[in-house]
This record gives sequence, structure tokens and C-alpha cells, in this order.
Amino acid sequence: MNYKMIFYFIGYVLLTVAVLMLFPLLVAVWYREPSGIIFLYCSVAIACIGGLLTRMKPENSAFYAKDSFVVTALSWIVMSVAGSLPFYFSSAIPRFTDALFECVSGFTTTGASILPEVECLPNCMNFWRCLTQLIGGMGVIVFMLALIPSTGGQDLYLMKAESPGVNVGKLVPKVKKTAFYLYTIYFALTSLMIVGMVIAGAPVFDSICTSFTTTSTGGFGIRNTSLGAYPVAVQYVVAVFLFFSGINYSFYFYLAIRRFKDAFKMEEFLLYSLIFWGAVIVILLTLTKIGGYGMEEGFRAAFLQVGSIMTTAGFSSVDFDQWPSLAKTILVMLMFAGGCAGSTCGGIKISRLGIYMKTVRKEIRQLCHPRMVKVIKVDGKPLPHNHLRSANIFLISYLFIFVISLLLVSVDNYDFTTNFTAVASALGNIGPGLSMVGPTKNFALYSDFSKIVLMFDMIAGRLEIFPLLVLFSPVTWKKNS
Amino acid sequence: MNYKMIFYFIGYVLLTVAVLMLFPLLVAVWYREPSGIIFLYCSVAIACIGGLLTRMKPENSAFYAKDSFVVTALSWIVMSVAGSLPFYFSSAIPRFTDALFECVSGFTTTGASILPEVECLPNCMNFWRCLTQLIGGMGVIVFMLALIPSTGGQDLYLMKAESPGVNVGKLVPKVKKTAFYLYTIYFALTSLMIVGMVIAGAPVFDSICTSFTTTSTGGFGIRNTSLGAYPVAVQYVVAVFLFFSGINYSFYFYLAIRRFKDAFKMEEFLLYSLIFWGAVIVILLTLTKIGGYGMEEGFRAAFLQVGSIMTTAGFSSVDFDQWPSLAKTILVMLMFAGGCAGSTCGGIKISRLGIYMKTVRKEIRQLCHPRMVKVIKVDGKPLPHNHLRSANIFLISYLFIFVISLLLVSVDNYDFTTNFTAVASALGNIGPGLSMVGPTKNFALYSDFSKIVLMFDMIAGRLEIFPLLVLFSPVTWKKNS
Repeated sequence: MNYKMIFYFIGYVLLTVAVLMLFPLLVAVWYREPSGIIFLYCSVAIACIGGLLTRMKPENSAFYAKDSFVVTALSWIVMSVAGSLPFYFSSAIPRFTDALFECVSGFTTTGASILPEVECLPNCMNFWRCLTQLIGGMGVIVFMLALIPSTGGQDLYLMKAESPGVNVGKLVPKVKKTAFYLYTIYFALTSLMIVGMVIAGAPVFDSICTSFTTTSTGGFGIRNTSLGAYPVAVQYVVAVFLFFSGINYSFYFYLAIRRFKDAFKMEEFLLYSLIFWGAVIVILLTLTKIGGYGMEEGFRAAFLQVGSIMTTAGFSSVDFDQWPSLAKTILVMLMFAGGCAGSTCGGIKISRLGIYMKTVRKEIRQLCHPRMVKVIKVDGKPLPHNHLRSANIFLISYLFIFVISLLLVSVDNYDFTTNFTAVASALGNIGPGLSMVGPTKNFALYSDFSKIVLMFDMIAGRLEIFPLLVLFSPVTWKKNS
Repeated sequence: MNYKMIFYFIGYVLLTVAVLMLFPLLVAVWYREPSGIIFLYCSVAIACIGGLLTRMKPENSAFYAKDSFVVTALSWIVMSVAGSLPFYFSSAIPRFTDALFECVSGFTTTGASILPEVECLPNCMNFWRCLTQLIGGMGVIVFMLALIPSTGGQDLYLMKAESPGVNVGKLVPKVKKTAFYLYTIYFALTSLMIVGMVIAGAPVFDSICTSFTTTSTGGFGIRNTSLGAYPVAVQYVVAVFLFFSGINYSFYFYLAIRRFKDAFKMEEFLLYSLIFWGAVIVILLTLTKIGGYGMEEGFRAAFLQVGSIMTTAGFSSVDFDQWPSLAKTILVMLMFAGGCAGSTCGGIKISRLGIYMKTVRKEIRQLCHPRMVKVIKVDGKPLPHNHLRSANIFLISYLFIFVISLLLVSVDNYDFTTNFTAVASALGNIGPGLSMVGPTKNFALYSDFSKIVLMFDMIAGRLEIFPLLVLFSPVTWKKNS
């Protein structure tokens, strides 16, 4: 383990967080909020520590796969702690575990909150909540890779450790350029959405904050009633951009380089659209038949809620905990599905679901014709065996972590639906669950122990599990290994 | 597809069912229950149809893997329909879907019932319920293989299609002999248990019926309060035999041929014991700390309920729906785990869980040391790749069927916990769930459509999914394939 290199890298992460904290400071100045001064103090303190760490440049910059997992997992823990300081020291969130929970929920784009209401927070605090999601959505490390000078051959490892999906970093051969393109698409989408929201009639500050948490599929709102606070047109803008945000960014890259056919023939995009609109239609039918909704109202609620849950943003426009059972169950299942790989979504990801479906179909054929040799193909190309293996192991690990977390959280003695959806929501980076963690409720009810479990799940979900498993695995820390 | 051969085989299955129906007839004669005459009528009718089918002996006895899956799946459907006739025509269960549900639940050893009470049924009907579980536990086809003359080289395929577990049919090289040994161990366990229960103070008829449904891990009771009706000593006898029934039968085979070391070093046995007693201890602590139970009472309840759910029998001695959340959640998770492969249990099976754990551990090591080559071993032997693949695909298929069933059943608009545990219970062949399908409730509330979904799940769970998938897959029925 190259400890010096790890410290050096984490120093850069802290410096990045310190710089980011200057933005909410600007917001505080703009709105003349005196409590915003805390961002200056925190930024300076964090910058000092970060600066110290980056001063100790290691002689040996050798960096292995193991190190990249460890550094990624540690970075996320460290930046969550750093990011929670303004909440805690400003007394906006007086308990440290709660402040940390809110910040982990921000960076991991989960959007689960322990705050019963958010409108009482100063604008600078709400802006910071939303900014953590913007940066967490595409990834702090990817952000750094796009900006800071390359530190050696570890870029690809790091990017793989932080980016979601089966196979990443393939937009263009160079990692640095890929990171740059990803952030370009990301910021373009976000800017477009801000304009769209303003045109549709939302206040500028709300538009900025909500766009940050939509394209990052984070789901933090700055209104107590979340999206319910906005006019119909604004809700549609959010719904449309939620759908956009769940798509693999390769799709936009293809569009940008005018390979339209490649874009619209991407299997993951097709399967995503199929599940998305299928879910919208079934929920719409349920809502109008037995939920007592009108047609437009039902469509808007279904569109927004499917977009919100499937892309793992987690906004709410209505209290879907009151919906008919089928509609609620569809949402819970979408929590596991998630959006496309290579987007800012959490969950298991559509590309993996596609692989799983093809595996089962292949197995049935093989059972019928044992001597037949068939290869699983994705987008016309044979799927490498290690991608298949990694998809399988991801599912198994996801389930193991889910089950263990569910058991640990059950100690608090809330009902099964609450615990099940709380863990599903945390691990999938969604936000709300059902029952006592439903859209009109929050996560404050859980004990500190359960909150730590849920924070672990959020980071595990965001980093696709393995970086955290490697960090906490004894084999990583053995000498001579 | 060799249709003639399939009909011929199903004829034998029907004959077997017809012969089995003579046993409840004897019970009816013993207890002078006039309604029992229905078993004679049904038996004769079924025997006629079965006889007709077996008369059409096919010229070509060629039989492929595909055929064996189809014949197994069809056999289970046909025998369930045949077995439900006495319930229906005697008006013991006046609705056909309910009669079929009860019978599918019997043969698949699920033990879920649509009956609000069972003590009002004549003894012959209750005996038939329990006998379906005894035969379903080890398998009708395995039963036939042990008794009827071999019909060619298809025995192994058939046995594999009906027996649970990753790798079956390995007790001895010959399939016929393996089937014979399995049934010998099975009947020996059952007989021992009958003796044990009688000594502990249970009535003889109760002892026979309850032993049938314990060693088969079926879980049908003949008392309205299930095991709660019996004295403490009897409950302990059941609990102990539940633990025994969850163990891989290879364990007993090793004991019988005096290879004690091999028996007690079986990894699956060790993991099973670990999970079993771990769950008992945690539930005991929960029950005594916050459930208000005393020590002995808590231990007995925990022992019985863990045994009952983990082996997928599904008896209840107490209303565990009232237990603290942690205890309930452990039971729900055990529904998925199930007992050992090569036992009569349902669920995913402990051997597969062991493989999944080893896969994750191997992956973490591989991530730390990418160039290391490591092989997964079970009981000291390297695990063949196709076993690993099949375990992975099983998990994926299990989850797909679970999710689709959950969505379909949600149409009835019951709460999430009810639907989730109903499907988990049906697919794992357990019996009771939580909430509205809890131990004091029954499955009568569901619509016919949901009951059909749950029946599909029970058979899919019992046959480990693939036979049913092959039966319903279009590729199976294509010409020239």
C-alpha cells in the first residue's frame, strides 16, 4: 500500500472541497446571510489540512488497483466529513451524525434527509446541499481528473473505481479527455435545465438548486413539499430532465459526434425507455382506475415519480405512500433497477439487468440444446466473460449488503416496509422510501447506529460496492500483500 | 419433443397418485368417515386415465434433457390437478382454485393454506393433505425411479430436474440406487419421528400426520393452532426433527456408511448449523429483551420457528407476526436462504449461499491482486465452472420470478409486507408469511389470479425454476429444435 500517495491524493480531494465551499459563501453574500461566514472558516481550515497533505509529495508514485479502491473509498468518507462541518458548526443541523448523514446523502446523490423541513435553512445551506449532489453525481475524482494534471497511470483505475457501470471510460481512449467530456455533457444538461425551469416559471434560485439535484439524480429539494411546490409546467420540465438524466452519457456523446444511429440503437437506452414508459403506463392506469386521479394529474404524477425513483433522484411531487399497492411496488422494484450505467444514477443499472435477462434466456436455450454453444452479445458485440462475472458478483454483493443492512436496521424495531425501503433507498441512492420513511417523512427516526449503516449503504451504492469492500477487507491491510 | 414418451410417463405419474389415494381411503375406513369414499372414486378415475396413457407405449424411447424438464414440470401440474379432486368433489374445499391451491401447496411442501381452520375436515382429508407433502418432499419422480423398472437412460436427467440442489444424484453411481437410498433415509427419519412424537405424548394420528409434514418440510398442520396445540415435549421433538430435515441427505448417507469425518466436515452442514443456531440465538435475545418472553419459552419459540422457516416447513407454534422487527426480518431472510441442497427444503439453499460468499471473497482478493489466479473450492475440491454459472443463473432467475410475481400479486392491493412475504413464502415453499398472510391467517384473501401466480411460484420453487421455465419457453416448442 502506497500510504504517502493516498494521503497526497486525499489532500487534493480536501482542497477541492475547500474551493467548492466558496460558492455557498457567495450565495450567503448575495442573500446577506451572516451564518454563511461558516463556509469561509470551514473552507480555510479544510484547505490548510489539504494543503499540508499535498505538500508531502511522495517520491514513489506507483499506484495499484488496490490503492485506487482504497483511495476512492477514503476520499468519499473524508469529503463527507469535511462537507458536513458547515451544517454542524452553523447549528443548521445540531447533531453531528445527522449533519454527516445529510452530507453523505448529498455527495452520494441519495437525497434522503433527516430534516423535517428545509425552508427554514438559510439559502447558502440549501445551496451547499444541492452543490454536494452536483459534484457527487458525476464524481469528485472524475472532476479532479478532468481538471488537475495527471498524476500517473492510475487515472483509469480511479475513474473505474468511482464511475458507475459495467464498463466505463470508453468514450475516448484518454481518461482525462473522457472525464472532461462527461463533465461537459453533465454541465450542458444542467444549464439547459436551469433555463427550462426559469422559462416554465420557477424562481432563479430554485431553478439552479433543483437543476443541480435533478441532473445529478440526487433529489434534494429546497421546498418543504419538494416538487409539489412548483407549477405544473415546472414539474414537467423536471420530469423530462429526469428521463434524460437516467440515460447513459455515451448516448449524448454519440449525438454530439452525430452518430445518431449508434445512439438510438444502444440496447441499454432501449431497455431503459421500455421499462421507464412501461412503468409510467401501468402506474397511470392504477392511479386513474383505483387511485382516484384524473388523467393529466395521474400522468404527471406517474411520469415524475417513475423518473424520480428509477433515476434514483428521489424527488416527490405527491405522497406516493398513499398510492395503490401495485404502483408502490413498481416504485420499490425500480429502486433496485436504477438507471443506465454511465449516467449519474444509482441502483443495479439497466445494463446489468439486460445482461441478467440474456443470461437466463441463454441458459434456457442451453438446457433445451445442451450441445449448442451460444455467446451473449451486447450491442452486437460478444460480452467478455469478466464483464459477465463482474455483473453476477455485483448482484450477489448488492444482495448480501442489502440483507445485512436490513437486519442491522431492524434492531430499531420499525416495521418491515419502513426498514426494507429505507435500505433499498439508501443502497440505491434514491432518497425516500415507504411507510415511516415515505415522501412526507424523513430519516431522523433512526438511531445513530442505523444511520451509520445507512451511510455505509449510500457510499457503497454510489461507489458500486467494491471500493468499500476492499477498504474494509482484512486482506487489503495484510503486510506483504 | 417425444410426445408419446411424455404421455406414457405422465400415465405412470397418474397411476402413482391413484395408488396413493388408497391410503386416505384406509384412514376413512378406520375412522368410519363416509365422505372418504370419494378417494375410491377419484382413485379409480385417475387410474383409468393413467392406465390408458401407459398402454400407449412409445416405439421410440429416446429422451433428451429438454423432454425431462418438460415431463417433470407437466407431471407436477397434472398430479396437482389429480390430487385436488378429492378436496373439490367432497366439498371439503368447494372452490376449485382453492382445492388446487391446497394441493399444489401440499405436493410442493409449501404448506400455505386457504383454509381458515383444518379441524373441521375429516381425518381422511387431513391425511391426504399430509401424504401429498410426504411424497412431494422427496419427489414423486424420485419415488417412481426407486420403484418402477428403469425406462432407459433418462433417469439421471429426471432426477436432476426434480431434486433440489446444485449437484445431485451422487450418493452412489446408479440413479435407481440413489433414489432408493434417499427414500430409505427419508422414511427412516419419518418413522423415528413418529415414535418420538408418540413417546412425547402426541396422539398417534397426529404423530403420523405431523411427521409426514415435518420431514418433508411441508408444514401442513391438522390442528387449527398448528404446533401450538401440542405439549412442550412434542414441540421439542418437532423442532429437533426440523433441524435434522434441513440437512443434506449425503450427511446421513456418510453416517450410515460410517464415514463420520466426511459427514461432520461437510461445509454445507457447517454453514447450515452456523446460520441456524446463529438465528436462534439472536431471536432468543430479541424475544427475551423486548418481546417479553421467558427463557425457555423464548428458546422453544426461536428454535421451532427458525427450524420451521429455514427448512421451509412453515409450522407455527406462536404468532410470530407479533414479534419484534429484527426477529421477523431474520425469519423473512431465512425464507430466501432455505435449508441444504439434497434435503427436502426449498429456498435458494445453503450450498448456493456458500458458493456466493466464496465468490465475493475471491473477487475482493482478485481486486487486490489482479494477477493472482484463485479457484473456488467446496469441501476441498475445485468447484466446476458450470456449477458456479448455474448457481448464479439460479439466483438471477429466482429474483426475476420473485419480482414479476410480486408485481402481479400487488394488483390485489394488499400491503407491501403481505405481498412480499406471500411471494417469498410461495417461491421458497415455506407456508406462512407476515401481516395478512401471517401464521394465524391464510391465503384465501387473494384473488384467483394471484392464487395462480402463487401456485406457479410454488411449483417453480419446488422444481428449482428451470423445468417450469423450459416448459413455458417458446424455444422449447419450436419445430426442428
